[in-house]
Amino acid sequence: MQENNWDIAITGGTLITMSAGMEIIEDSLVGIKDGLISAVGRNNDPNFSTFKAKELINASGCIVMPGLVNTHTHIPMVCFRGMADDLQLMEWLSKHIWPVEMRFISKKLVYDGAMLAMAEMILSGTTTFCDSYFFEDTTAETISLVGMRAVVSQGFADIFMSDKAKADKMMRVAGRFVNRWQPHAPMITPAYFCHSPYTCSPDTLTRVKEDAREKGILYLLHLLENKDETDTILDRYGKKPVHLLYDLGVLDEQTIAVHCNWLSKEDMAVFADLGVKVSHNPESSMKLASGVAPVPGMLRQGITVGLGTDGCASNNDLDMIREMDTAAKIHKVTSMDPTVMNAETVLKMATIEGSKVLGLDKFIGSIETGKQADIILVDMNQPHLTPLYNYYSQLVYASRGADVKTSIINGKIVMKNRQLLTIDYETAMDNVNNIAAEIINQKLR
Amino acid sequence: MQENNWDIAITGGTLITMSAGMEIIEDSLVGIKDGLISAVGRNNDPNFSTFKAKELINASGCIVMPGLVNTHTHIPMVCFRGMADDLQLMEWLSKHIWPVEMRFISKKLVYDGAMLAMAEMILSGTTTFCDSYFFEDTTAETISLVGMRAVVSQGFADIFMSDKAKADKMMRVAGRFVNRWQPHAPMITPAYFCHSPYTCSPDTLTRVKEDAREKGILYLLHLLENKDETDTILDRYGKKPVHLLYDLGVLDEQTIAVHCNWLSKEDMAVFADLGVKVSHNPESSMKLASGVAPVPGMLRQGITVGLGTDGCASNNDLDMIREMDTAAKIHKVTSMDPTVMNAETVLKMATIEGSKVLGLDKFIGSIETGKQADIILVDMNQPHLTPLYNYYSQLVYASRGADVKTSIINGKIVMKNRQLLTIDYETAMDNVNNIAAEIINQKLR
Repeated sequence: MQENNWDIAITGGTLITMSAGMEIIEDSLVGIKDGLISAVGRNNDPNFSTFKAKELINASGCIVMPGLVNTHTHIPMVCFRGMADDLQLMEWLSKHIWPVEMRFISKKLVYDGAMLAMAEMILSGTTTFCDSYFFEDTTAETISLVGMRAVVSQGFADIFMSDKAKADKMMRVAGRFVNRWQPHAPMITPAYFCHSPYTCSPDTLTRVKEDAREKGILYLLHLLENKDETDTILDRYGKKPVHLLYDLGVLDEQTIAVHCNWLSKEDMAVFADLGVKVSHNPESSMKLASGVAPVPGMLRQGITVGLGTDGCASNNDLDMIREMDTAAKIHKVTSMDPTVMNAETVLKMATIEGSKVLGLDKFIGSIETGKQADIILVDMNQPHLTPLYNYYSQLVYASRGADVKTSIINGKIVMKNRQLLTIDYETAMDNVNNIAAEIINQKLR
Repeated sequence: MQENNWDIAITGGTLITMSAGMEIIEDSLVGIKDGLISAVGRNNDPNFSTFKAKELINASGCIVMPGLVNTHTHIPMVCFRGMADDLQLMEWLSKHIWPVEMRFISKKLVYDGAMLAMAEMILSGTTTFCDSYFFEDTTAETISLVGMRAVVSQGFADIFMSDKAKADKMMRVAGRFVNRWQPHAPMITPAYFCHSPYTCSPDTLTRVKEDAREKGILYLLHLLENKDETDTILDRYGKKPVHLLYDLGVLDEQTIAVHCNWLSKEDMAVFADLGVKVSHNPESSMKLASGVAPVPGMLRQGITVGLGTDGCASNNDLDMIREMDTAAKIHKVTSMDPTVMNAETVLKMATIEGSKVLGLDKFIGSIETGKQADIILVDMNQPHLTPLYNYYSQLVYASRGADVKTSIINGKIVMKNRQLLTIDYETAMDNVNNIAAEIINQKLR
């Protein structure tokens, strides 16, 4: 009989593994040791009859599943949640978001916003996210303090680089950022983020990609969020955005294209051929009226697609469970076919497929022996989750962020029975409320 | 100085009145006596300095607002939540919903389902709903026990009436139902529900409407949920559905058309002219891939539109807050215009406009002196609701059903600090779980 000496044992829940075989184990047992999943099985398995665990979590009445993976967000933007809604995109950006960012972005705002955002994310079941914003070094430090898992991406946009000297300096800063955080992977994984083909010059797009390749890191960019991006790029370069990126040689398996609302079938073939990954953010694109990404088509072509919330200024939350529900429904009605984007497909996008998008699927995204322990418990013993015919349907179409009861990241409990253990959320709320008060005062002036 | 001797006083919250002037009162005070709102004002108003109240509710950190109005649902269908999803409509209906209904519908199922559904509705901020299902008498009795407000509508469909004698009998049963419940209005308001133009004969459509007119009650029907309904009706009668209903003389201010996903501009003009009301159920129609109702167009034409969840078999929840969020976002992206269906418009649809649809706006839908006290408190002091720039945005785009803290219906507290006071929800869950177990057993056989 094997020795079972664990840090944490989770017993009695229904385990949704999200492994290749999509096993579901009722009355399950998960053993965690040194941050890793060291045992997965049935509670009554004789191999586990003698286990010891420092901490025993009773998951009776709960689903036990991989933590959710948010493949695209700008977490400090929680500070602007609800600041400006229901506006045309350019009015929203140029009259509200950009002026406030110019005036108020600071390391303090990034720290305060990141703290609050992580409270919200943990409370709604996210354990891993991919962030792109200003002062990413501060964001990475804040994430380390809290113990969440993240891809942190250093941003590039030519509008902030007026000459080559500045561009050179930015590459050096970015290089130092990567050097600092690369040893922290796969908890904190540095990456590069070129804002978009319309805000980055071809030189910058290629230079950043070359450096990303050299360092073996991910390369992200917003792509085809809006319909007019194609015309903008066509006017400027005589070719469409994906054609441009292809010719620049920046598309490969380490590239994540965010949004892709206006990706054509030809673009999809290029993505599928080169292994480009996609981050799909349906709620943000619906709210900004940017479009609906052709995700069913992407999946048919074999493109790896993860789910994301985008920032809180355009969503206005970081709730991946709500995002799953919307993702399933928007594609059904857009394609007039209720069989597309079924609950299982969407749940994969929010877990194992999102992990693939972020290059982390060796470590997370499913509950299997040897993987790192990013696990959430969802309390199913509630009126709106009764009765229970199908676990996937219930999670996607009926559960809510607030149903997540307990969360474990890298083998550490970060939330237990809805209590956050690594974030002082009341201080985070106070700090962000103070920032908002300053913004409101400034706007009123 | 006036005498202020109240049953309940709600103090210190931000009051979202939803009155014609859309007043918002910070640090507010609401006095309730004998089921009615007897005072609305500021906490520091000298007129209220000496009030007495049997129960004092501290609403500090909360939004105080009218309870949400769900204009269309089939509450006992919670028993089928998640039973069959991601299927083509006819497969879903004919292979799953209808056979299970035929086999399992009983007064007991209706009672158990109604209890569970009301638990979910109260827990997510709904205080009034419009129900249409089998054994509506049992549903009305169950609603009375719980103390929710509802329009209960007796259903008609020719497929269940093989001859005139049966039809006569059904009208007599329906008449007794109306006689029994009409004295309970506006808490329980009886109505008639013709299932649809394709399941009711012209004779039944007109006969039921004539009786509804005589009794002064609402007349509801599903209309243009699916695209092919137009062809079906055109084939059968040589005219389109709204044309048919117009010729039958069943369209007026007491008629509520549910769904209307395929309503044409001409149809809208007819509705606007005759004062026909619309119940909009975006999530159900998205999930079934039925279509997106042209609501911005309806509103431009002056049609009164309320929001609804539809039944739990096609949603899969009864959460009106989530429904608001989806309603705003689906119309923005469908019309490619982020300014349509702003947060304020959607919140009106879920409160005062929904009350107008149900003919109850004299009594509920806004917080004003003299109206009946249907009031909810939403706890805004939470990470995902921080910071707070705009109350309407926050309610529609960021808040969740679980944020509703306390609920008052007709001056009675039915939920206090998330504790249901008039429903034994654990028994309701057990009962519905048992029904589901039977259904699963039957399906496995």
